[in-house]
Amino acid sequence: MTAPRAALRESGKPPDEPFAYQRIADELAACIGNGTLAPGYRLPSIRRTAAHWKVSVPTVIQAYRLLEARRLIEPRPRSGYFVLAHTGRPLAAASPSRPNALPTSVATADLIVRFLGAIADPKLVPLGTALPDAALLPTARLARTLGAVVRRDPVRSVMIAIPAGTIELRVEIARRSLATRAAVSTDDVVITTGCAEAIALGLRVLTEPGDTVALESPAFFGTLQVIAALGLRALEVPTDPRTGIDLDALDAALASGTVRAVVLSPTVHNPLGFVMLDEGKRALAAMLDRHGVPVIEDDTYADLHFGAERPASLRAFARTSPVLRCGSFSKTLAPAFRVGWIVPGPYRTELLRVKAATTVATAAPTELAIAEFLRTGGYDHHLRKLRRVLHENVQRVAAEVAQRFPPATRISRPAGGFLLWIELPETVDSLELSRRCQLKGVSIAPGPVFSATGEYRNCLRLNAGQCWSPHVAQAVQTIADEARSLQTRSG
Amino acid sequence: MTAPRAALRESGKPPDEPFAYQRIADELAACIGNGTLAPGYRLPSIRRTAAHWKVSVPTVIQAYRLLEARRLIEPRPRSGYFVLAHTGRPLAAASPSRPNALPTSVATADLIVRFLGAIADPKLVPLGTALPDAALLPTARLARTLGAVVRRDPVRSVMIAIPAGTIELRVEIARRSLATRAAVSTDDVVITTGCAEAIALGLRVLTEPGDTVALESPAFFGTLQVIAALGLRALEVPTDPRTGIDLDALDAALASGTVRAVVLSPTVHNPLGFVMLDEGKRALAAMLDRHGVPVIEDDTYADLHFGAERPASLRAFARTSPVLRCGSFSKTLAPAFRVGWIVPGPYRTELLRVKAATTVATAAPTELAIAEFLRTGGYDHHLRKLRRVLHENVQRVAAEVAQRFPPATRISRPAGGFLLWIELPETVDSLELSRRCQLKGVSIAPGPVFSATGEYRNCLRLNAGQCWSPHVAQAVQTIADEARSLQTRSG
Repeated sequence: MTAPRAALRESGKPPDEPFAYQRIADELAACIGNGTLAPGYRLPSIRRTAAHWKVSVPTVIQAYRLLEARRLIEPRPRSGYFVLAHTGRPLAAASPSRPNALPTSVATADLIVRFLGAIADPKLVPLGTALPDAALLPTARLARTLGAVVRRDPVRSVMIAIPAGTIELRVEIARRSLATRAAVSTDDVVITTGCAEAIALGLRVLTEPGDTVALESPAFFGTLQVIAALGLRALEVPTDPRTGIDLDALDAALASGTVRAVVLSPTVHNPLGFVMLDEGKRALAAMLDRHGVPVIEDDTYADLHFGAERPASLRAFARTSPVLRCGSFSKTLAPAFRVGWIVPGPYRTELLRVKAATTVATAAPTELAIAEFLRTGGYDHHLRKLRRVLHENVQRVAAEVAQRFPPATRISRPAGGFLLWIELPETVDSLELSRRCQLKGVSIAPGPVFSATGEYRNCLRLNAGQCWSPHVAQAVQTIADEARSLQTRSG
Repeated sequence: MTAPRAALRESGKPPDEPFAYQRIADELAACIGNGTLAPGYRLPSIRRTAAHWKVSVPTVIQAYRLLEARRLIEPRPRSGYFVLAHTGRPLAAASPSRPNALPTSVATADLIVRFLGAIADPKLVPLGTALPDAALLPTARLARTLGAVVRRDPVRSVMIAIPAGTIELRVEIARRSLATRAAVSTDDVVITTGCAEAIALGLRVLTEPGDTVALESPAFFGTLQVIAALGLRALEVPTDPRTGIDLDALDAALASGTVRAVVLSPTVHNPLGFVMLDEGKRALAAMLDRHGVPVIEDDTYADLHFGAERPASLRAFARTSPVLRCGSFSKTLAPAFRVGWIVPGPYRTELLRVKAATTVATAAPTELAIAEFLRTGGYDHHLRKLRRVLHENVQRVAAEVAQRFPPATRISRPAGGFLLWIELPETVDSLELSRRCQLKGVSIAPGPVFSATGEYRNCLRLNAGQCWSPHVAQAVQTIADEARSLQTRSG
């Protein structure tokens, strides 16, 4: 595959536009969907397609792989790619949420703890976790980098850890903030023990016990846990799985005057996977400005967007209301290094004080290793490949779900990340489903852990970050079988 | 020095009792103090002394080095060791504290933050910090160990970090708990991001905002910081610099019924350096049992006791009242690795829940490196040497203070660690002293940061963990000069 790319470069042609393969795949998918390309039809050869679209051969190969992952086409040895027979109507998109509109304490804290305990069993096929497959992360290279940085300066690596974090890492994070259209300086960044500490510290400086925090619903259960731990109340706001938080509903909530802070994940949401468009973020920021409410922007998955360009941060649109953007390297590089960060804006002094009183500093060696990995330029290359593979994985798991799950199932259309949100028929109880799947060696994340009040009883989140294998295929089949059995029993 | 040791072993003689050198040094010091050994007297040769005490030559060398550090004797080339002329009366021991007896919010939180900011300047001679000299820690070996453990299992080191911490490290901590006479099992231990997180989590599970926490006075300012950050009130209890917390005063405080938890450091206290004797710990534990109040036992410096045997933990004596023992490797191995631990007893589930919600887990690579260092047996050997060197250092700095500081100065007699608590004449303001010393390139820790109400205005804590050098000698002289100047101005 390197030969044609090199040939193209030598011929002086410009490189393909980024993500051209997605555009091509989408158009071909549309032709398959509307019958223009009927089942059994042989697609034009890769070279002919490349000439037709005026793109390189690798781009077409990528487009075909994506269609293959979506189970729309399949390769046959020495014959090319063929359109597959439809295996059923595509699943409907997941529906907008309608959570309880009142602030509430987190009633699901115990449920979340039990869930986290259950999915920690390493013998389970980990479809309930939110971690990419180890094979997709540069584990060996990170290990070498870590060894190299500490051997280069043992005294510093062993002796010096400061609350704000090592300068090298803050430089890299500040540099990368340019792409979010809300550039920050090195001094604006505080390193944290994962994004969990970033959100916890952010809420600590923004709220007092008893205060209300608004957030998208369904919400990341880690945020619900810290809301519970700090004695706060959660206000779950209706959210559309494709466009993000319902702005009218949030406006009404803020107008009530009871919301002290908002936690949002507008760029690749967990569990829904949406990326809010610029217009949405602009309107959202204007609303926050109008009400003067600060927001914690959780960008944990933002580097895993599937689009051509890094979406802008909410910070890019906010004028007066503080946006405390935070993120981590736990989903893209090294979950076990526990390195995250936050841009605390005007709360920096107070946030550093709380950090100094509770964890003092993040471990220096892992900070230095991540900084070195970012500095030496491997991160963007790694991200490009990781995004492409995760996109394929998400499409493949979605296609398998469409083929195997009960027909009334609805499913999210993630614009990034590796998580799928699935709505089963109303009669299926995902907590019971979770118990049954565990007995058969598979973990899932049941819907109620994503809500302060245990909503989403018929929903689940699937981890599509595992590399596809017969093992994973069997796990998806197990979930489908158990879901059908639960549906039958109730129906 | 290895030859005589080897010869002894070959001759079949038993090894010297541990810490024989301290006993010999103490007896010789007494003879010097009462005039039996007058200034100018030449001590018997090392071989004769060894024969007299029936110990090995290296033991006598260690005893003479300790006396040299205390500036009681000095070696002269090719002539042996001579008793020094008295350089002034030895300083009086630091006096028992008499803090305010009412629970109070921490009024010094801002002062502590400013102090920590000021001493972070790497250009200062760090006599205000509480870190041993990098030359005393096995930085190169830790760096190699860290590199080796992550390369041995990159997938695990990069991917897997769990709230309770890695099993290998919990095994080692449980194994080492045997020596404290309060053995715990592997499952009893939770790894934390330094001892700071251990104390913060302990207080989170034991208290609610507004509750009162009793502690020794003066107290470690980090504990005061977390009391402030959690919205708690501090009750400072009178404490004797040699015997520890005043049991009658604590009894009265507990009898009032307002104290929800106690934080104590009975084995090598920061800043006072005392080790509470077994009888004291037994009475203390019985009192806590009687009142049913839980205690967080901060054992951060306990491995640095100067005695022959590891003092028992308070846990060894408590029957019903929970003792949450915690500690770290920040003072003995690697400050920047941020690895601590806590034994939360009956609060384990709740503590893990708060940890999962706030930092999730401690970084795996540094946990694994510390575990490997402990497992491969280098830690005890390292500790023996570190304790001996720190003891010499403490004696030397104390002797220098006696020689140079104003005559009315009083000083602590640490039984471990590397910190000295110094009481200057009442008219000297240590905050002003701290400002002046900083301008001259030296940091100190002024007394008021060790109190919720800013007591100990005429006191300071000195870090004697730096290797002795003309640089450090000059720094001690600078502090003495500024103290004398402030005393003169006020007097």
